[in-house]
Amino acid sequence: MIFTAKQIADFLKGEIIGNPDVTVSSFSKIEEGQPGTITFLGNPKYTSYIYGTKADIVLVNNDFVQDKPIKATLIKVPDAYAALASLMEMVNQNRPQKSGTEKMSFVSPSASLGENVYVGAFAYIGENAEIGDNSKIHPQTYVGENVKIGKNTVLNPGVKIYQGCIIGDNCILHSGAVIGADGFGYSNEKGVYHKIPQMGNVLIEDDVEIGANTTIDRAVMGSTVIHRGVKLDNLIQIAHNCEIGDNTAMAAQVGIAGSTKIEENCVLGGQVGIGGHITIGKNSQIGAQSGIVSNTKEGSAVIGSPAYPVKSFFKTSIILPKLPDMYRQLNTLEKELAELKKRLTPNG
Amino acid sequence: MIFTAKQIADFLKGEIIGNPDVTVSSFSKIEEGQPGTITFLGNPKYTSYIYGTKADIVLVNNDFVQDKPIKATLIKVPDAYAALASLMEMVNQNRPQKSGTEKMSFVSPSASLGENVYVGAFAYIGENAEIGDNSKIHPQTYVGENVKIGKNTVLNPGVKIYQGCIIGDNCILHSGAVIGADGFGYSNEKGVYHKIPQMGNVLIEDDVEIGANTTIDRAVMGSTVIHRGVKLDNLIQIAHNCEIGDNTAMAAQVGIAGSTKIEENCVLGGQVGIGGHITIGKNSQIGAQSGIVSNTKEGSAVIGSPAYPVKSFFKTSIILPKLPDMYRQLNTLEKELAELKKRLTPNG
Amino acid sequence: MIFTAKQIADFLKGEIIGNPDVTVSSFSKIEEGQPGTITFLGNPKYTSYIYGTKADIVLVNNDFVQDKPIKATLIKVPDAYAALASLMEMVNQNRPQKSGTEKMSFVSPSASLGENVYVGAFAYIGENAEIGDNSKIHPQTYVGENVKIGKNTVLNPGVKIYQGCIIGDNCILHSGAVIGADGFGYSNEKGVYHKIPQMGNVLIEDDVEIGANTTIDRAVMGSTVIHRGVKLDNLIQIAHNCEIGDNTAMAAQVGIAGSTKIEENCVLGGQVGIGGHITIGKNSQIGAQSGIVSNTKEGSAVIGSPAYPVKSFFKTSIILPKLPDMYRQLNTLEKELAELKKRLTPNG
Repeated sequence: MIFTAKQIADFLKGEIIGNPDVTVSSFSKIEEGQPGTITFLGNPKYTSYIYGTKADIVLVNNDFVQDKPIKATLIKVPDAYAALASLMEMVNQNRPQKSGTEKMSFVSPSASLGENVYVGAFAYIGENAEIGDNSKIHPQTYVGENVKIGKNTVLNPGVKIYQGCIIGDNCILHSGAVIGADGFGYSNEKGVYHKIPQMGNVLIEDDVEIGANTTIDRAVMGSTVIHRGVKLDNLIQIAHNCEIGDNTAMAAQVGIAGSTKIEENCVLGGQVGIGGHITIGKNSQIGAQSGIVSNTKEGSAVIGSPAYPVKSFFKTSIILPKLPDMYRQLNTLEKELAELKKRLTPNG
Repeated sequence: MIFTAKQIADFLKGEIIGNPDVTVSSFSKIEEGQPGTITFLGNPKYTSYIYGTKADIVLVNNDFVQDKPIKATLIKVPDAYAALASLMEMVNQNRPQKSGTEKMSFVSPSASLGENVYVGAFAYIGENAEIGDNSKIHPQTYVGENVKIGKNTVLNPGVKIYQGCIIGDNCILHSGAVIGADGFGYSNEKGVYHKIPQMGNVLIEDDVEIGANTTIDRAVMGSTVIHRGVKLDNLIQIAHNCEIGDNTAMAAQVGIAGSTKIEENCVLGGQVGIGGHITIGKNSQIGAQSGIVSNTKEGSAVIGSPAYPVKSFFKTSIILPKLPDMYRQLNTLEKELAELKKRLTPNG
Repeated sequence: MIFTAKQIADFLKGEIIGNPDVTVSSFSKIEEGQPGTITFLGNPKYTSYIYGTKADIVLVNNDFVQDKPIKATLIKVPDAYAALASLMEMVNQNRPQKSGTEKMSFVSPSASLGENVYVGAFAYIGENAEIGDNSKIHPQTYVGENVKIGKNTVLNPGVKIYQGCIIGDNCILHSGAVIGADGFGYSNEKGVYHKIPQMGNVLIEDDVEIGANTTIDRAVMGSTVIHRGVKLDNLIQIAHNCEIGDNTAMAAQVGIAGSTKIEENCVLGGQVGIGGHITIGKNSQIGAQSGIVSNTKEGSAVIGSPAYPVKSFFKTSIILPKLPDMYRQLNTLEKELAELKKRLTPNG
């Protein structure tokens, strides 16, 4: 992208103060602004940076009043951060979109590709797989037999989807994500494990984003289900037969054991672990590194391993380093009390 | 698969109650049963579901007595769950097996492939690698030079095996597993790290299953060893020179530091971390999210970070939220006792 | 490699005791020494092994005095461990280096490759990408458009680098590492997440090693920066806009949330989690499994979740299992004290 201040102001319906012909080609934070970039001033806390920024254009709120000269061209808009976001969105959507099937890809004759689909080199699309319109199957991805992928979905390079899994519309899967590997299920006879075939699949609904190297296992029977609008960060593990509710978000490295249900609109911090066969009620917030071993009510806010209410956790955390002193103090008191009692008991 | 109730009853030597001609094509849980599926009723807790299930066939124990009409065809067998498992196993084993070398794969002229081997498109088999009979090397996998792979082993799409590693018979490696990357070894001179070449390999014995995106590093010298029957879930880290004993199982996201030995038949919960140069005695159970910093005796059952016996851990966990109250209570008692002593000391 | 004892002694300028013609082809630890290997005796604790080792050559310190016959050929050097390391380094550097572009790779016509570059089969090098001299792009890797890679850098099989990221000289990236996937950034309107385009990149300086399946997300604006000499183990997550200082090392499965800065020469144990927008002062040591929720001063040594000083943590850990007893003891004391006070209060 290369834009002039005038083009940007026109797009945002903003007012230019300064040189309308200056050009920018990328975005920056105001405290790190480099020549050739556009930035924004939203939070007044950062106002001091605007007088020294090397960025060539700064989006500012309409009520911004400058009290010193500014080298950058300003564009005044009602909400500088929202304007920047819409500009980023526009640039992002105008990126050239690949389509067509690159040479050195493998597409089974029985697979069906919608309109305007991209299949990159070294991608493998198995028997009877279906890819919806406008979806982008980047290089080195694997789409197993009987997999169905909706419209406008992006599989970044190296995504692997095992046979029979279903992915909705408008999903983004990042590199290294593995969908539909076998769940971890065995029977144990005399100390030796025997594999239980994992005959189900993974079902991912629309508008889901799945981070790099995240793994979602197929169900033993039925489906592991990721509902609409779920956002999963990198390196997350979702075990077989889990169900993740609409618009639930999880930070990196969370692990969910088998058959657990996370209801809608929950937020899980990084490295949380949740046991198997548990239900987390909707709108719950689970703090980073928590360990959950039992059902959690709607709207819970917990942290710790095992987890308990957040407020209580942080109070306890402040006291924990004093525990050795408490231990000594307690034993001293016990002795002193015993002595006192002895002293008060004439014939003790 | 499409089977009639009659075919299934014949295979299981069970007795049909209902329509012998109804067909099913997949498996379901009784509480989620869909048309076209077969399910089972094992645990009496789920009996109520059988009267409403939409599944077309239900496997039931011989002693099951129905007290209302049931729409599904029943098949009576001695053990409904075991019968379902054997049916799943049969279906699984009768899946069409690929063999032969797909075009657009790379097989070094010096590599040797056994009988009935499958090499998928975009797989890379390096110099002097050996693949045993019936092994399946799926698309996009990497088998480095001098790697040896046994018989009946499956490398799912995207598995990477660095040079010189050895994999046994009947193993299953899931997508994204990385075997034999360099161990994390450096010398530090004046704050700068210098890499210590990692000259060993990884040795995986027979009947091992390794989850998606799990990493097992090569030894600095000698071998990192995964013994027979070990089962590793997804996203696990096994560092250089570790040794994991027969039939040990680890849930997802466990991390084992270098040169640690886990003896046979241990079970590690999810997200456990074990320090370096430690031995975990056989038959030990390590609770989820535990941190282990010293040797653990045979048959231990521990949890926590650092870990201690399970029973004690859960008792402590119940008290922890009361710690701030205990702190206040203790200080109050100290004051009261001091006052009391003062009161009792005439010349205090 | 196959070397005689004489060749090795010449290389190391050491003195041979025993057969100069014996040959070895790999390295071993003295306690696991196998025929055909060379080992070393550094730590006197292991001296007893030298009399029974099956290794054919043992490097020993000049001051080593044998008091029984030894079957192996000895080579005396000033520092046995350093000699072994230099021998490993020599062997490692003399491995045949691949160069040239293998068939069935994809190199965009607009990409530029330096001298002596290797591009393996099924590697994908996008538009305008630049690869520096002597770099090795192994099979099945993905180098997105406008990516720049320096000299002498190795991308192991399956590495994925999204568009626009920059990698320095002398770096090693292990299989499955994902560089530049989108940061985890959304705005939330009425419970529904809207993606914030991630317009920045990842900048990795020289001499960095990145472990298998580690993920480093691109910045929302600007760069996620990994400075010179950083060493990251496997399965680590570095979120968008983080900055990791020179020569900092992290063990496996660490997770760093967005916009956090780890200064130079820090060491993070395995499975550490660090919150967003935090600064960890230089030369800090963070114990395994710690959770960091606030800034940490230069030279800190902390552990725990939330973390506090190491010494205090281990003292508290010893007392923790006694907490239920302390609780009972405290309540008993409270009762006894109340009784005592009552007894001493005549009209109580």
